[in-house]
Amino acid sequence: MTDAQPHATTPALSAHSSAQEVRHAARSGALSGHTSGLAAEHVQGNLAILPAELAGDFLRFCQRNPKPCPLIGVSEPGQYMLDDLGLDLDIRSDVPRYRVWEHGELVSEPTDLRALWRDDLVTFVLGCSFSFEHALLAAGIPLRHVEQGCNVAMYRSNIPTRAAGPFHGPMVVSMRPLKAADAIRAIQITARTPEIHGAPVHLGDPALLGIADIQRPDYGDAVPIMADELPVFWACGVTPQAAIASARPAFCITHAPGHMLVTDLLNRQLGQG
Amino acid sequence: MTDAQPHATTPALSAHSSAQEVRHAARSGALSGHTSGLAAEHVQGNLAILPAELAGDFLRFCQRNPKPCPLIGVSEPGQYMLDDLGLDLDIRSDVPRYRVWEHGELVSEPTDLRALWRDDLVTFVLGCSFSFEHALLAAGIPLRHVEQGCNVAMYRSNIPTRAAGPFHGPMVVSMRPLKAADAIRAIQITARTPEIHGAPVHLGDPALLGIADIQRPDYGDAVPIMADELPVFWACGVTPQAAIASARPAFCITHAPGHMLVTDLLNRQLGQG
Repeated sequence: MTDAQPHATTPALSAHSSAQEVRHAARSGALSGHTSGLAAEHVQGNLAILPAELAGDFLRFCQRNPKPCPLIGVSEPGQYMLDDLGLDLDIRSDVPRYRVWEHGELVSEPTDLRALWRDDLVTFVLGCSFSFEHALLAAGIPLRHVEQGCNVAMYRSNIPTRAAGPFHGPMVVSMRPLKAADAIRAIQITARTPEIHGAPVHLGDPALLGIADIQRPDYGDAVPIMADELPVFWACGVTPQAAIASARPAFCITHAPGHMLVTDLLNRQLGQG
Repeated sequence: MTDAQPHATTPALSAHSSAQEVRHAARSGALSGHTSGLAAEHVQGNLAILPAELAGDFLRFCQRNPKPCPLIGVSEPGQYMLDDLGLDLDIRSDVPRYRVWEHGELVSEPTDLRALWRDDLVTFVLGCSFSFEHALLAAGIPLRHVEQGCNVAMYRSNIPTRAAGPFHGPMVVSMRPLKAADAIRAIQITARTPEIHGAPVHLGDPALLGIADIQRPDYGDAVPIMADELPVFWACGVTPQAAIASARPAFCITHAPGHMLVTDLLNRQLGQG
């Protein structure tokens, strides 16, 4: 097969694909990789699926920590068709790759949950920084990790979350180096979308967040910070995953990193109340 | 005269005075001092009065440099009653103290302009940072120069203005030290009011603005910057005054520093389009 003869049954996915095309490719098994850059106009979400007995605690954790845990959807127990987030959206199959956890240990990375589904599972979908990065790039603000094709740098900060039931732990923050004028614009742009982490939580000296070495992130990849740049820190969607890891529930499911749920929501609809 | 027997014809002015009370006190000569803190809910303005032959150039200068030169009112030539800015507002008498300039030299500091008035004079009133400082303090963001009872620190930056006719020169910036979280909130708050300088133009390293020693401001008073604070820089209303000084017009009038025009406009009406 060459570029001139694409596979007949697997159309290439791109920034211009529809959200449903991406989800159906995940469902069919044609897509088991990252969703970064696919269906670029659409909101992508972090996923957490928990037994109903823990769902109330996790919901309160998100409500108490809205900047790192911006909820864009919560299902009923057992509900797997999430109509509010997309047409024909089946959360059991429409994410390219999942992670299944038992007592805090990763036990498998399936591409389909139908065999594992239970009537007591509650799905949480949380906003993700892909959406605000889309807005920053559209405003002409360069993002180094995008230019370098690596993952954003993330750090466990000394900002505590407000605990709820077994869910607790530090706020995880993502860092993007920006020139001061771009940082000022980025604050204004991201403040408009509290659905996806909102305005930064810090900028400048990393030590004030308890970060000893900015070149050694706890998650993701390090990027250089130039002399005329400030590190700018946003609340990060890894925070709830870290809180779930700390809580060590007997059973839970998340998305695999970078393998997000692509919703029918449009990034440009965010920030409009 | 004691506190128990205030002067019958000069009621004490305060934050709770009406704007018209402050203007009438200036008009009668009862007030010839600073207006800081008086009629606190009201927009105060910087003043520039120029002959009509220069007014077009100055208007273009303001239009081209809206952050340092936020126009809130422009008169017709010779017009001295500025109804748009206040009831019974006479610009010849209602500012506590003026400065008269000839060829760039300060020649007098009168408290009344009626003897100097000319039919070709055009009045420009520009927004002033008192309004956004009011909003920052109301949001619980402390301002060191207010706490210390001194003037804000101001610097000639390396940011050029866009020239118009004889008006040119660097942007003058004011600096307020803030903790990062307060800086992020202050950016959001001040971005809402482009009528009064809008969002900051810089934060962090002063050297990037060409400021060699942050403890030696070009105007106003130095304030200390704590280890957990960032210097945050806004475009400053001294910029147009510096541009006028550079242009050295044969005749012009400004307010004396700190002796502002108190308008009937309300600070809370700013930022609403």
